[in-house]
Amino acid sequence: MNKADRIADVRIHPIAFRDPPLLNVAGVHEPWALRSIIEIELENGLVGLGESYGDLVTLADLERVKPALIGLSPFDLNALTRCVYGAVAPHSDPAATFPPAGDKARATAVGAFEVAMLDLQGQILGQPLHQILGGAVRDRVSFSAYLFYKFAQHRDAPDPGDDWGEVLTPEQMVGEARRMVEQYGFGSIKLKGGVFEPERELDALDALRAAFPKHPLRIDPNGGWSVETTRRLMPRLDGLLEYCEDPVNSLAEMGEVARFATMPLATNMCTIAFGHIPETIRLNAVQVILSDHHYWGGLRATQHLAWIGRVFGIGISMHSNSHMGVSLAAMAHVAATIPNLAYACDTHYPWQTDEVIEGGKLPIEGGMVAVPQGPGLGVRLDRDALARLRQNYRDCGIRKRDDATEMRKYDPAFNPARPRF
Amino acid sequence: MNKADRIADVRIHPIAFRDPPLLNVAGVHEPWALRSIIEIELENGLVGLGESYGDLVTLADLERVKPALIGLSPFDLNALTRCVYGAVAPHSDPAATFPPAGDKARATAVGAFEVAMLDLQGQILGQPLHQILGGAVRDRVSFSAYLFYKFAQHRDAPDPGDDWGEVLTPEQMVGEARRMVEQYGFGSIKLKGGVFEPERELDALDALRAAFPKHPLRIDPNGGWSVETTRRLMPRLDGLLEYCEDPVNSLAEMGEVARFATMPLATNMCTIAFGHIPETIRLNAVQVILSDHHYWGGLRATQHLAWIGRVFGIGISMHSNSHMGVSLAAMAHVAATIPNLAYACDTHYPWQTDEVIEGGKLPIEGGMVAVPQGPGLGVRLDRDALARLRQNYRDCGIRKRDDATEMRKYDPAFNPARPRF
Repeated sequence: MNKADRIADVRIHPIAFRDPPLLNVAGVHEPWALRSIIEIELENGLVGLGESYGDLVTLADLERVKPALIGLSPFDLNALTRCVYGAVAPHSDPAATFPPAGDKARATAVGAFEVAMLDLQGQILGQPLHQILGGAVRDRVSFSAYLFYKFAQHRDAPDPGDDWGEVLTPEQMVGEARRMVEQYGFGSIKLKGGVFEPERELDALDALRAAFPKHPLRIDPNGGWSVETTRRLMPRLDGLLEYCEDPVNSLAEMGEVARFATMPLATNMCTIAFGHIPETIRLNAVQVILSDHHYWGGLRATQHLAWIGRVFGIGISMHSNSHMGVSLAAMAHVAATIPNLAYACDTHYPWQTDEVIEGGKLPIEGGMVAVPQGPGLGVRLDRDALARLRQNYRDCGIRKRDDATEMRKYDPAFNPARPRF
Repeated sequence: MNKADRIADVRIHPIAFRDPPLLNVAGVHEPWALRSIIEIELENGLVGLGESYGDLVTLADLERVKPALIGLSPFDLNALTRCVYGAVAPHSDPAATFPPAGDKARATAVGAFEVAMLDLQGQILGQPLHQILGGAVRDRVSFSAYLFYKFAQHRDAPDPGDDWGEVLTPEQMVGEARRMVEQYGFGSIKLKGGVFEPERELDALDALRAAFPKHPLRIDPNGGWSVETTRRLMPRLDGLLEYCEDPVNSLAEMGEVARFATMPLATNMCTIAFGHIPETIRLNAVQVILSDHHYWGGLRATQHLAWIGRVFGIGISMHSNSHMGVSLAAMAHVAATIPNLAYACDTHYPWQTDEVIEGGKLPIEGGMVAVPQGPGLGVRLDRDALARLRQNYRDCGIRKRDDATEMRKYDPAFNPARPRF
C-alpha cells in the first residue's frame, strides 16, 4: 500500500440548515436542524465524504476518533472499528438520549467515517459505491412520502414560514400528501403520528386512504401509544396499514402488541442495535426493522442487518432523520445492494430547502432516487454551501436537538412523556 | 465500467490429487481426492482463482452457471447470485449427499465463483483480498493439527504408502500429533473420531492430553455417536475438550446433548446453511459454528455468518475438506478479517503432498498461515501442476467421493449408517 493512499486529514464540519416546524411525539422541529459533514482526505488529495448527527455528543465522539485515523488505509474498515472502540467510551454521555448512550455511540462513529472511507475506495477504483458493496440489484431506490403535522411557521420571529403552510387537519394532511405525491411521485405514504389523539390521526389516515386508494400507508407514533390504546385502535387500523411503526415504546410492549396486531410491526426505536436482535426474535416483537447506516454502524453493518433479516424472516426498511444529500446518496447506494429491501425507505429530504452537495438537491422522481453512478458516493461538496451551513451552525445557537423545549414555546405545558395516549 | 474489466472467460478444471487413507465415520479416504479449480478471466487478461468441490454434481452446477457470467463485472457479486439462482436448481440432484441438495448447491456455486471475482477485485485494485473484505485484524491465521486414524497404505496396488504410516493406537496417534506439532507448530489439536468404539478414541484423547498438556483438544465423531452414548462419555470428556464437534447427527439431537454437555458443541454438519440458524438458536443446540466459505456461499457470506455469531453469542471456527492452496489462501484472507474468529481453523492441508499453486505449498509455521499479501488472493496457478492434476482426474476414475465403498475394500461388512456407536 502506497503512502499516497493513506489518510492524511480528517475534517468534521458541524452544519445547520433550515427545518420546518414538523410535529412529533417529542415536540416540534426547531428552526435549524444540525448535522455533521465528514471529509477524509488522502495523501494523494482524494477526499471521501460522510454525514452524521450534529449534536455535541456525536461531534465530540468524532473528534476523539480523528487522530487515530491518520495513516490508515481507507480499505481497512476493521481498523476504523478498532480506532472507534479505542476512542469512544461505551457510555460517552450516559445522560444523552439522542443518540442513545452505549454501543450506539460507537456504531454512530463507525458509520460516519466508514461511508467516507468507502467513498474513497470507490474513487480509488473508479467504481460507484454500490459496486464496492457487492453490486446493485436496482438502479433506483423507492422512498415514501413522509407526512408530518406541522405549524405554519416557527414561533421565533422572524420566520416567514415555509410554503407547506399549516397541516393540522385531515384535509390539510391530504393536501400535503397530494403535493408530495405530485411533486415527487411517491408510491407509498408514511404519517408521523403520536401528535394528536390517535382517533384524530386515524381520521387523517382514512382521508389519505380515500384520496390515495392504492398507496401503502404507514403510521409512526414514535412509541406514543400505550399497549391498551393500540389494542383499542387495532380494528380501525386493520386492513389500512402496510406496517405500524413503533406504536409503543419498548421491545417488551412491541411483543405484546405483536400478539394481537393484524399487520407487521416496524421499528427504529426498540431494535436499534445488533444487541437487541436476539430479544427481538425471542419475542417475535418486530416484523420490519428500519435500518439506518448512521446508527447501525455503517453501510456494511446495514448489509449484515439485512442479511439477518433474510435469515430470520424480518423485513427490512430504512429510517431517516433530517439530512443532506451526502446521507441520501449513501442510503441509495446501500439500499441498491440489498435484495430483501422490501419497503420504500423513509426520508425527510423533501422538507429540506438547503443542500451541501454540488448541483443542489438530488432529484426524487417517480418516488425514487437514482443511485448515483459517479465514482464512490458520486456526490461532491459545494464549498460555498458548506461555508454557509457552517456559519448557520455558528449563528443558530442550537447545539443539541430539543423538540420538547421548542414545543413549549407554543404550549408551555407540553410534556413529552410517553406513552402520551 | 470499462469493457476491459468484464468477464470474458470462465474455466473449470476438475483435478485429482493424492490423498492418504484417512479414516472417518463414513469410511476411508480414497487414493485420490477431487477438487475443482476455477479461473475467471477478464477482457484485459487478468485471471481470478477459485477452488471448490470436484464431484460431478458440483462440476455440472458450475458449468451451468458459466455462460451467464460472461460480460459481468467482477464487482457485481449480487449479479453472480442472480446467475447462480437462475442456473442451479435448488435440488439439482436430490439424491446427492455430498454436497447436500438444496440451497447448499447454490451457495456452493456462489462460493466457487465469488472467490475468483474477489481475487480479480483485489488484482484490479492492487490490494490483498483481505483489504477488499474490510481489512485484516491479524496477519497470521491459526490452524489446528487435524489428526486422523489411518491405514499404512491404500488397499489398491500399487501404493507405496505415505510417510505417516499406520495410526490406529493411542501411541501411534500421539506420534502423529508429535510430528504435526513439531513440523507445523500447531497450538491446538483436533481428532477425527467416529471410527472406533468411543472409549478407544477417548483413550487416544487421554494420551494426547498427557503428551500435550496445554494444547486445546477437540474430537469430531461426525455424528457417529447416539445421544445416549454421548451422555455416557460426558464424564470422561468433561474438562478435556475445547469443544465437541458433531457428536450426534441432527440439530435436534445436538439440542438434546447441549442440555447435558459440559463443553461447547461445534458443528459443520447440523448447521450448514443460513436457513438452519433460527432453529439452531431456538434449540441452543450449537455454541460454535464451523464456517466454510465453500458451502456457506463465499467469503462475504462467511463474514455475515461470523456477524450472526457475534450477535447471538455463537463462536466461529472454520471447517475444511481436502483442499489445495487456492482454498487455503481464501480461508486465510477471510479468517484474517473476522474479529470474532476465536478458534484455530481446521485444515487437511498437511495431509496433501500435491499442490496446484506456483511455488508449491503455502508454509504453516507456528501453527499459522501468513495471510498472502499479493494483490487479490496472492496465489497463482502452476500451469504444469494444473495439467498434471487434471490428468490425474482423467486417469483416476473417481467421479464422486465415496469413502464407504473404499472402506469395503478393507472390510466388506462396513456400514456407514449413523449413529454407529
